[in-house]
Amino acid sequence: MGTATGVRRGDGRAWDQPRATAIQAGYQAFAEGSALIEMGRTRVLCSASLEERVPSFLKGVGLGWVTAEYSMLPRSTNTRTPREERARGRSQEIQRLIGRCMRAVTDRRALGERTVTLDCDVLQADGGTRTAAITGAYVALHQALLVLVKAGVLPRVPLTGAVAALSVGMVDGSPLVDLCYEEDVRAELDFNVAMTDGGEVVEVQGGTEAGPFSPEMVSRFIGLAGDGMQQLFSAQRKAIDSMRDSA
Amino acid sequence: MGTATGVRRGDGRAWDQPRATAIQAGYQAFAEGSALIEMGRTRVLCSASLEERVPSFLKGVGLGWVTAEYSMLPRSTNTRTPREERARGRSQEIQRLIGRCMRAVTDRRALGERTVTLDCDVLQADGGTRTAAITGAYVALHQALLVLVKAGVLPRVPLTGAVAALSVGMVDGSPLVDLCYEEDVRAELDFNVAMTDGGEVVEVQGGTEAGPFSPEMVSRFIGLAGDGMQQLFSAQRKAIDSMRDSA
Amino acid sequence: MGTATGVRRGDGRAWDQPRATAIQAGYQAFAEGSALIEMGRTRVLCSASLEERVPSFLKGVGLGWVTAEYSMLPRSTNTRTPREERARGRSQEIQRLIGRCMRAVTDRRALGERTVTLDCDVLQADGGTRTAAITGAYVALHQALLVLVKAGVLPRVPLTGAVAALSVGMVDGSPLVDLCYEEDVRAELDFNVAMTDGGEVVEVQGGTEAGPFSPEMVSRFIGLAGDGMQQLFSAQRKAIDSMRDSA
Amino acid sequence: MGTATGVRRGDGRAWDQPRATAIQAGYQAFAEGSALIEMGRTRVLCSASLEERVPSFLKGVGLGWVTAEYSMLPRSTNTRTPREERARGRSQEIQRLIGRCMRAVTDRRALGERTVTLDCDVLQADGGTRTAAITGAYVALHQALLVLVKAGVLPRVPLTGAVAALSVGMVDGSPLVDLCYEEDVRAELDFNVAMTDGGEVVEVQGGTEAGPFSPEMVSRFIGLAGDGMQQLFSAQRKAIDSMRDSA
Amino acid sequence: MGTATGVRRGDGRAWDQPRATAIQAGYQAFAEGSALIEMGRTRVLCSASLEERVPSFLKGVGLGWVTAEYSMLPRSTNTRTPREERARGRSQEIQRLIGRCMRAVTDRRALGERTVTLDCDVLQADGGTRTAAITGAYVALHQALLVLVKAGVLPRVPLTGAVAALSVGMVDGSPLVDLCYEEDVRAELDFNVAMTDGGEVVEVQGGTEAGPFSPEMVSRFIGLAGDGMQQLFSAQRKAIDSMRDSA
Amino acid sequence: MGTATGVRRGDGRAWDQPRATAIQAGYQAFAEGSALIEMGRTRVLCSASLEERVPSFLKGVGLGWVTAEYSMLPRSTNTRTPREERARGRSQEIQRLIGRCMRAVTDRRALGERTVTLDCDVLQADGGTRTAAITGAYVALHQALLVLVKAGVLPRVPLTGAVAALSVGMVDGSPLVDLCYEEDVRAELDFNVAMTDGGEVVEVQGGTEAGPFSPEMVSRFIGLAGDGMQQLFSAQRKAIDSMRDSA
Repeated sequence: MGTATGVRRGDGRAWDQPRATAIQAGYQAFAEGSALIEMGRTRVLCSASLEERVPSFLKGVGLGWVTAEYSMLPRSTNTRTPREERARGRSQEIQRLIGRCMRAVTDRRALGERTVTLDCDVLQADGGTRTAAITGAYVALHQALLVLVKAGVLPRVPLTGAVAALSVGMVDGSPLVDLCYEEDVRAELDFNVAMTDGGEVVEVQGGTEAGPFSPEMVSRFIGLAGDGMQQLFSAQRKAIDSMRDSA
Repeated sequence: MGTATGVRRGDGRAWDQPRATAIQAGYQAFAEGSALIEMGRTRVLCSASLEERVPSFLKGVGLGWVTAEYSMLPRSTNTRTPREERARGRSQEIQRLIGRCMRAVTDRRALGERTVTLDCDVLQADGGTRTAAITGAYVALHQALLVLVKAGVLPRVPLTGAVAALSVGMVDGSPLVDLCYEEDVRAELDFNVAMTDGGEVVEVQGGTEAGPFSPEMVSRFIGLAGDGMQQLFSAQRKAIDSMRDSA
Repeated sequence: MGTATGVRRGDGRAWDQPRATAIQAGYQAFAEGSALIEMGRTRVLCSASLEERVPSFLKGVGLGWVTAEYSMLPRSTNTRTPREERARGRSQEIQRLIGRCMRAVTDRRALGERTVTLDCDVLQADGGTRTAAITGAYVALHQALLVLVKAGVLPRVPLTGAVAALSVGMVDGSPLVDLCYEEDVRAELDFNVAMTDGGEVVEVQGGTEAGPFSPEMVSRFIGLAGDGMQQLFSAQRKAIDSMRDSA
Repeated sequence: MGTATGVRRGDGRAWDQPRATAIQAGYQAFAEGSALIEMGRTRVLCSASLEERVPSFLKGVGLGWVTAEYSMLPRSTNTRTPREERARGRSQEIQRLIGRCMRAVTDRRALGERTVTLDCDVLQADGGTRTAAITGAYVALHQALLVLVKAGVLPRVPLTGAVAALSVGMVDGSPLVDLCYEEDVRAELDFNVAMTDGGEVVEVQGGTEAGPFSPEMVSRFIGLAGDGMQQLFSAQRKAIDSMRDSA
Repeated sequence: MGTATGVRRGDGRAWDQPRATAIQAGYQAFAEGSALIEMGRTRVLCSASLEERVPSFLKGVGLGWVTAEYSMLPRSTNTRTPREERARGRSQEIQRLIGRCMRAVTDRRALGERTVTLDCDVLQADGGTRTAAITGAYVALHQALLVLVKAGVLPRVPLTGAVAALSVGMVDGSPLVDLCYEEDVRAELDFNVAMTDGGEVVEVQGGTEAGPFSPEMVSRFIGLAGDGMQQLFSAQRKAIDSMRDSA
Repeated sequence: MGTATGVRRGDGRAWDQPRATAIQAGYQAFAEGSALIEMGRTRVLCSASLEERVPSFLKGVGLGWVTAEYSMLPRSTNTRTPREERARGRSQEIQRLIGRCMRAVTDRRALGERTVTLDCDVLQADGGTRTAAITGAYVALHQALLVLVKAGVLPRVPLTGAVAALSVGMVDGSPLVDLCYEEDVRAELDFNVAMTDGGEVVEVQGGTEAGPFSPEMVSRFIGLAGDGMQQLFSAQRKAIDSMRDSA
């Protein structure tokens, strides 16, 4: 792995720095929870819908369920993708990832037999839409669960920690954090890491089609993602605080 | 038809007044044209995609094509609508309407063998999404065509006028302009009118399941829609001017 | 608007005259109601199916439901349309229109918690299939409801009036009533008007892609449709009387 | 196999007699060929569409293609079948059968690189829809091919014989020819036989879920079908002659 | 029909001899019944799934249900067939045939309100996949029903006999039994015959696109199939005995 | 992480030992490459189809393409999964993973403008189907590419190494290698690791819904997977050698 010295990024960031992150909680008036997350030019609208029922495989088990759907608007990208061709395979893979990340920080027993569905719709895509979706979905999920606390249904928000995600890749032999689309296309290696604000890992997904890499690289990438993610946890807290106050 | 005196609307508007209208042109960085339109709590993101080809039925004819797609985010509404159930029939009807309205003000011969596809995605739905989509789509279309003018491909924007749309309904025997969702549900009669800024009609669609009405009502409703629409044309011009300057 | 003097129509009709209209009630032996309507060369087979249940959104409300489906046989038209491509969007738009028209003349409380489904299948299409479908569907609906009366379930047919529909268009600057396909293709402007035999409006749908028109035109078109529709109401009455006698 | 003496059929027919058969050629004005066939209360509308191309697997081979589609109107039957549930499996099986029967009597080399598509839509179903479809489709096919002869494209109609079909079943231990729906439901055994007017077999399909039967039965059933089919060939000839004269 | 003397088959078989047949019962560990059948290079994996419920049309009737599904692996054939294009029509026709054959030998009253679903997946296709599927499905069905006997739920296996199937065709004017793919492609005439081990017929399906044939041929083909099928019944018994012992 | 001492596995394996692995190359006679892999009771049939074309996005680029599809037979599992419900999302995720792993060891420039499609169909599923599919698909891919070498089209097999995959999980606080279904269901944490026979990583995917874990765990899991995988590479070599000799 080369040293990162001298890598110039299109938007002037340092190699280990995520893009500017802004999260607007409560963007949608009719949803129990919602968040519009912007990371550079990537924009994802996340909504959380709360229902007093669980899927049939959980009926009577005493556990809640958290699931997710992910989709891109046809013109979120540089060329239009017809609605019917919006890469079903990729979308399904991403929405399953989002769901798992949310469940990993949810105390499903404390939630009780309720379902939260997170809809993550990409309004604009400049790379890192799945990591932005995870980071934003957490805020929407938190807001929706707060509804239950405010209504006196639950004593506290049944979340065990915050979860966020960040991509790390290798471009021209140098590691880069939070790849934009143009960097992603050139990456030899591409990892998505989801972690908690306690510094623990929730999901690691990564690989390459450009040639295998050493096992040590994985550790290094997790470390870089963990460092960069501090900025995301900070943006999440700010968004959550704003809606807590507004309530 | 009753007199409208004394009708109180939830948001304090007069009976013949459209909701506050804001149009942000160029909301999406990667589309040739785009506009985020807000009418009260209704929000529709319209993008215009320009392609140098026409559908097969127009090949070699020398005319351009303008078409539209319409969809609602699952949680744009008060309860979540599963993606696969998002009223295909209604959506298809609406997107055909949007397409016709855009073609009615496009000089398709001047456009040449090009296609503009307007994607209207409802981020938040509080009634009047189809009329907001038409009003916003016009701005996105204008911006996309301006790209061709700025590139020197066309001498001028091939549009013969602006087009906007507004709903007019009859609630409890009184006419109301630009119905929000709660009013729409109670309406005995519901008209959507699309007109040009020259005061001419492009589309009229309306009817009732609550009992037939007199032919004179149609004229009255078109008049009310035409008056209210001045506010929309003004918002469109402001949005178009802003992007013209920014270019 | 030009004067209509001198317009010659392919089938020798006057400009304001609908095509010859024949309605055969009870065409299908196994349906509660059915009607084969012929308007010129346009032929639509309408069947009415009666069920002792309502959709879930109406359960326990005490109201009945009337809905419609519309489809064209693949070779009803001049060239064959593959079954899977039979313009879903257009069909959905039309069947929603038919359903609304039928509900507008149905006393849904008197009907009780029952559903009537109207299937309108176009056997031959020479323009005006949606208006023929409305006119024919009314007869099929009437016959199906008569079944309930004859069985002593309802005291009278729960319909508040007859409904029929007619198209009016502008061809070469002149208005024409009940356009056949060849006229429809050339029309600058195309309106479909559904009215009751009491002279009131149920639905108005119309517009143009060829350039906007004055609001006054709408009134004039409704007037022309209303006049032409007398012939349709007469054909409906004749068909209904024939099946009343035959029962 | 019991003797057939004494079997009373609902419509008074003898056990070996097909239902009254009427074929109206040219029912659809816009198709190259069409036929409305009625066998008792069963009514099938068959249209033949001629195209100057063949499927890709036949390109350059010098052979024509004849194919079929089969569908039932939702209310052709005693209870309504939703459009999306109209037994796809059964329909596909039937349309493949119709296609094979038509190809068996077509001189595909004489036809040349052309395709005839036969659409068989059941308007009313009282049993025997697939056999009626075959019998009617032959007339539509003949009419469509006659178009090529009349236009001087082909020297003669490229058909080697007529083809018709009839069902034979075993009800309460007695054989019956041309089962209506009520008989079909009670049949222990059900055969469909397609033959040429030269007395040769084109397709035999039959079986039972009620218990196996002796091989000799198959021969007997083919014989009965062949005898009953004379009435169908006669109706076909009459229909073909009528359209030959009318041209 | 020519004499069969001198016909040489690619694999050295006599003209009236089926391919080498091997059936491995219990191939799938998790299914109630399963069988991998090999006939020459044709290989079909059949599994039987037993459920304690019947489809809604049989609820409360006191009869069981047996149904089947058939599919080919994409590369079971010489060129790959995309999963979405795997001839739905043909598959549906075949799976309906398999289901009927199984029901014909099942005592559905003795089975009681249970469903057996037979999945027949073709691993390798060299002609005769539908007949191999029937022959193998019978073994899987038998094993699944034996589960109920072993569990003391049923006193005996509710089957009235064994069922197997074989194809017979006419190639270059000579009859051949159990056609492989290369022979099938060249066949003028192609019959599939399903029979019981008692020598009775369950299903006969056959026909031609190459020109009609005499009714006598059908009898001769059934005879040839019946003779050849002895080898199949023997392989079935061997497979069933092996699993009876292993239990 | 607890020590693994004392963990007893259902099949008697040590905690760090993969299941018995057998790969039969050339299982399918008609495919360019194929392999039936068995790992314990998990069985996956992998076939490789070679085509002399690339997808449109690669035309003229000079690179080959390798892609995969994955599906489970309905009764590969303990209860039957209807064909239409076979977890599309999960299948798509897995087939994308298989494709990436194969491309990571393919010299796509040396392959030239050709496509290899790997179909991985699970005949029996007892956990680890995706890792078995990767390990088996490599053998099928190798065989298919050998066809090109034997034909003199390519000088050597364009693969840069072997790739295999293995799962590692944490059950009751102890790590286990190559989880069977019963272990997988109980796992707190589940990783799939794909590596080359050179000891480098190709893909790492893992996570938890049961609570986050330390970054160090990832390294440990990769190490365990790498050790266990030696057995897989050995089985792959044996299968490849067998088919090399047989050719």
